[in-house]
Amino acid sequence: MEVVSDIASVRALRRHYGDATLGFVPTMGYLHEGHLELVRRARRENDRVAVSIFVNPTQFGPTEDLSRYPRDLERDLALLRGEGVDFVFAPGDGVIYPPDFQSSALVRGVTQPLEGARRPTHFEGVTTVVAKLFNIVRPTRAYFGQKDAQQVVVVRQMARDLNFDLDVIVCPTVREPDGLAMSSRNKYLEGDQRRAATVLNRALRAAERLWNEDTRDSEALRAAMRDTLAAEPLARVDYVSAADPQTLAEYEGAIPAGAGVLLSMAVFIGRTRLIDNFNLAGAAEQPGE
Amino acid sequence: MEVVSDIASVRALRRHYGDATLGFVPTMGYLHEGHLELVRRARRENDRVAVSIFVNPTQFGPTEDLSRYPRDLERDLALLRGEGVDFVFAPGDGVIYPPDFQSSALVRGVTQPLEGARRPTHFEGVTTVVAKLFNIVRPTRAYFGQKDAQQVVVVRQMARDLNFDLDVIVCPTVREPDGLAMSSRNKYLEGDQRRAATVLNRALRAAERLWNEDTRDSEALRAAMRDTLAAEPLARVDYVSAADPQTLAEYEGAIPAGAGVLLSMAVFIGRTRLIDNFNLAGAAEQPGE
Repeated sequence: MEVVSDIASVRALRRHYGDATLGFVPTMGYLHEGHLELVRRARRENDRVAVSIFVNPTQFGPTEDLSRYPRDLERDLALLRGEGVDFVFAPGDGVIYPPDFQSSALVRGVTQPLEGARRPTHFEGVTTVVAKLFNIVRPTRAYFGQKDAQQVVVVRQMARDLNFDLDVIVCPTVREPDGLAMSSRNKYLEGDQRRAATVLNRALRAAERLWNEDTRDSEALRAAMRDTLAAEPLARVDYVSAADPQTLAEYEGAIPAGAGVLLSMAVFIGRTRLIDNFNLAGAAEQPGE
Repeated sequence: MEVVSDIASVRALRRHYGDATLGFVPTMGYLHEGHLELVRRARRENDRVAVSIFVNPTQFGPTEDLSRYPRDLERDLALLRGEGVDFVFAPGDGVIYPPDFQSSALVRGVTQPLEGARRPTHFEGVTTVVAKLFNIVRPTRAYFGQKDAQQVVVVRQMARDLNFDLDVIVCPTVREPDGLAMSSRNKYLEGDQRRAATVLNRALRAAERLWNEDTRDSEALRAAMRDTLAAEPLARVDYVSAADPQTLAEYEGAIPAGAGVLLSMAVFIGRTRLIDNFNLAGAAEQPGE
């Protein structure tokens, strides 16, 4: 496995691969089983696999956790060696954002609700770094986790609108045995917070039960999530949502027959902000979470 | 010469070319000798040459000349056949901007002065369509005319910041025998306007004379341009500028020793807005216009 930190080395590797298919997993490091599942799928579906490790400063807000975001490059590289990755791109900030950097890739519509409403500069940071990484790595397929449901919708929109010649592949959320979605930020949870954090998954399951009993009243689905969250004293709700999975527009009243729903939420457990979601298929679709 | 209007056909041609170098000239059609000089240079420097013809609606402001912008596809194709172009990409609006399109490539700093100050949405339209065309065509080199001096700086910044793997090549402005810079918009000039339009070039030459006599007072350069323009009753000045050629920041007072200057202007001749510029090198640089 090659580990490179400059753009010219990535381009040289890509040229060397020629027409081979390349699967790409962009990450911020501090890898967990969710990331590794993306890598494994990339490994199965492509001739070559590349992973990037870059804690992207522009997707953090001014009051967010950039400085304390967990990092452990040696451990990450050891995990990736075990998965048969061809190369890791681990650039410094100055490689990605040189002096006088002043451009963005920007998505306007689907970035507005949910995470975008609470983190107004977040998705511009995400789409810009992803566009740069796509142009540097030139993957055949890029792999993202469903855990960041809106990010998936936003990146797909950006890739389509700006004509990136690749497929955006979405993989299911990987969970701890007690249902907590894997996240690098779970490391922040201390003492009782770790147990309390399972309330996101429990809230989603409460709404899913109603959905499976054919409840299509979006307010009832949101209420089921809110009621479960309210019963956990360590949890403070940022938002709960039942939205159209494609447009991310919040449903009001009855969900149209046959349509799916994206149930999602952001919840503070102490100072730690966690997100989770279930993407529930409508009648005509394959189920998928 | 192949003429294609859909993205899949462009991708198929590009794949077919394999590792061959591809020179690309993006245009809005109604080709003149300036465009053809770009094509000829692309022809000399690359194995293959592609030209796009697309009147990009998003780079026109609401009060600008989109609806009356001149078009003549058959004439354009005949001219390009004569230059040994491999393929022309002439998409419809719906191919470039499908329903639900909502993304942009955006450059913030160098888009602010000059044209960007008068045409606030112009460069976002330019950079977005150029980013899309770069991703569709995947050129080795892309060719632009110095006539649109700020566009060149903006596109280069975008290509660098978003890591497009190509070279942006700039070619000198091509002029009519009387000095008028070639432009598709020259077609709008009627009667005395055509003669009056030479005032832009005359104003630039007046400032260039001062520069060649070692005048480095930026206000004196602007005054020389303004005075020449004021003597032409059919001309109405939008702006005149003496700016840093890299940052496009307007010079105030003395221009630093050894630095170059971008002299530029926008002038209305009747309803027709014309632009022109001289890019004058400093002591240490090669001259180039």
